[in-house]
Order: sequence, then C-alpha cells, then structure tokens
Amino acid sequence: MIRNRIPDVVVKRLVTYLSVLLHSDFEDGDFVSSAQLGDLAAVNGAQVRKDLALFGEFGKQGVGYPVKALREQITKILGADREMPLSVFGIGELGTAIVRYIAGRRRSDPNYRFWPVALFDEDPRKIGTSVEGIVIHPLSDMETVLKELDVKIGIIAVPASAAQSVVDRAVASGVKGFLNFAPTKLKVPPGVRVHYTDVTLELQELAFYI
Amino acid sequence: MIRNRIPDVVVKRLVTYLSVLLHSDFEDGDFVSSAQLGDLAAVNGAQVRKDLALFGEFGKQGVGYPVKALREQITKILGADREMPLSVFGIGELGTAIVRYIAGRRRSDPNYRFWPVALFDEDPRKIGTSVEGIVIHPLSDMETVLKELDVKIGIIAVPASAAQSVVDRAVASGVKGFLNFAPTKLKVPPGVRVHYTDVTLELQELAFYI
Repeated sequence: MIRNRIPDVVVKRLVTYLSVLLHSDFEDGDFVSSAQLGDLAAVNGAQVRKDLALFGEFGKQGVGYPVKALREQITKILGADREMPLSVFGIGELGTAIVRYIAGRRRSDPNYRFWPVALFDEDPRKIGTSVEGIVIHPLSDMETVLKELDVKIGIIAVPASAAQSVVDRAVASGVKGFLNFAPTKLKVPPGVRVHYTDVTLELQELAFYI
Repeated sequence: MIRNRIPDVVVKRLVTYLSVLLHSDFEDGDFVSSAQLGDLAAVNGAQVRKDLALFGEFGKQGVGYPVKALREQITKILGADREMPLSVFGIGELGTAIVRYIAGRRRSDPNYRFWPVALFDEDPRKIGTSVEGIVIHPLSDMETVLKELDVKIGIIAVPASAAQSVVDRAVASGVKGFLNFAPTKLKVPPGVRVHYTDVTLELQELAFYI
C-alpha cells in the first residue's frame, strides 16, 4: 500500500500498535496474536488483522505476529525512526509542562525521537532563560531560528488569541505540522497539518459514559 | 437508539459536531447542511447524515439541519447540560495548566459545565494553597473529600509511577471516569472508564504526515 494512501484512522491505530509493542512486556523473540494486540490497543482482533494485512503477510496462522519484525515493520511504515526536532510556542505553565514531559521521555527512552530544539515566548522576563537546557527565544526571532534549525513540527501552547498569527509565521518558516493546545481552530495552507488536543472535547466524551 | 448502545466512534463525532455548532458563527435561526457540518468537523457529509439519522429525522432535504434544534438534540443525547464537578490529581506544571485552562473556559462560556472542585497533591508546600481559588488537599484526604463533593471525573496529572495507586483510591471513592495525562496504562474495574491523552502518540501520528 502506498504510504500516502493509508487512511488516517489506520495511521492512528498503527501508532497505538507500535506504542503497545514498545511498552508492553514483550521480548524480541515473542509472538503476539491479533487478539492480544487488539486487547492491549482497545481494537478488535479482526480489525488488527485487517490493518496489518494492508502491508503484506507477516502473521502466521495459529502463532501470531513475530514481535520484533512487527515492531520494525510498523516503525518503517510510520517513519518512526527519524529524529524529529520540534519547537514549542508559548512557554507558560502548559508549554513548560510539555517541554519537561518530552525531556523526561527522552531521558528514559534512548529511541525517543522528539526533541524541542527551540522554545519561543514573548514575555521579556522569560527570553534568554531556558527550560531543560533549551533556550527561550523571542517570537520576533522565529523566522531565523526555525529555518536555521530546520524545524518541521510546532507545538502551539500560546493563548487562543495569539495562535493563528504564530502558526502563519511558523508555516512561512517551513513548519509542516502542528499539535495545537490552544482552544481555537487554526487555518493552514494545503500540505500543512494541524492536530488538535482539546481537553474539553475529551471531558465531554468521557462525561457521556458517566 | 438506546443511549448506551451508541458506538464510541459516534460519541466522539457527536462531541465534535456539538463543539462545531457551539463555536462556529451560526445563528440560532440558521440551517447547516451535512456537507458544511462535515467540513467543519473533518468528517465526510455522508457520515454526518448517517450519524444524525441514528437519532431520528431532523434534517430537511435541500435545506439542512436547523442549528438550534440540532444543538439541543445533541446536547440532550450527550447529556452535555449536566454540571460536572471534577478533581485534578497532581498540581505540578501540567495540573496547574489544566486547572487554569478549565477556569478560563468557564469564565468565557457561561454554559461550560466542567469545574474542578478539589485538587490534590502530596507536596506539603502546596497543600492548603490554591489555584484559581480551588484549595489543594493532601492525597491522604482523598476518600473524604471525593465522597463529600460527589466527584465523578478525575484528571490524572501525577507522575506515571504514582498514577495507578491514585486511580485505585479514587475509584474506591466513587470516581467513574479518568482523563489520564500520565504516560502509563491504567487498570480500572468494569464500569469505570479511562481516556488517554498522550502527547507522544499525537506527535507520532503527526510526524507520519511530514
């Protein structure tokens, strides 16, 4: 299957499968059944088989999938072995928490590939200080810094009112994807992607079941 | 359709439709087509029609759905008009950012129904202080406070190593649903729900497209 034809929902599930394969207690030599993998990923077994069949036959009837090969294959499909420098915009409480979270993950997992190479804020008291050893730049330096460091991913943790203008400038500086924590909808040109993390939507969904 | 038979994916989309209907520039008297609603919710129009048809006929051929009635109907289906007191566990940078975010949303939207009624941390320097006017209690008071305030939703922002024990105790005190920010899998008994917010999974997914 051609890489850019993989449906978004399948990409989402592949990410979950990979996470499960990396963080559960599987050994390299183990086999995992579609039912087992489905249980851990909260997906039904038939769906797991269907998803993985898209990329060729690497399961064995009655035995399951070899954990190591499956992990390597999904990593390859997702391109999950490339280093991914990123930038965090807005170093308030949320931005700081995100930087610390990523730094902590990176410390505990040598294969963790995300790394904030540049932080931005507009508060003069923060500029020049650092979080986890990464310097906070003024927003006015965005164009120069992003191009120099070839940043492709931006995490938006500025207030909603500032988000669109930050995104516009980051796009002009070569950023191709955003994870948006600001509670606002963002407009981006074709070829640029925005994923939304909205605590309110998560709470609404959770509340439905209660 | 019986409320507890609605598939999870449909619940997720209904939450998105409602959010779009509440936060786009629709007037009460407007009509919205399935194509329009789909565009705003990043779902195709046929899927929108299929989802909404599950709850009876409230669209008109060639005119669309009346915005006000649709909003009220989805609110009713989701139970999104009930007040939802919640509790935040772990008032570090992330927990503080979450409390401030919810407080801000509540200030700007009189219908916002989530509200942190109790915060918990184990750091003696934080206990007794408050964030957005909400007092931080010691984890040791959890059982008393949660039962007294009838808290049903918990937001987990403690370190991964502490998450399971906090969840176990909160479940024993009547909490029915968790939004988990700790990078760890949580075990809960049947009838209790956990939703995961994992920045790493979001970044993996986003990176695929870049």
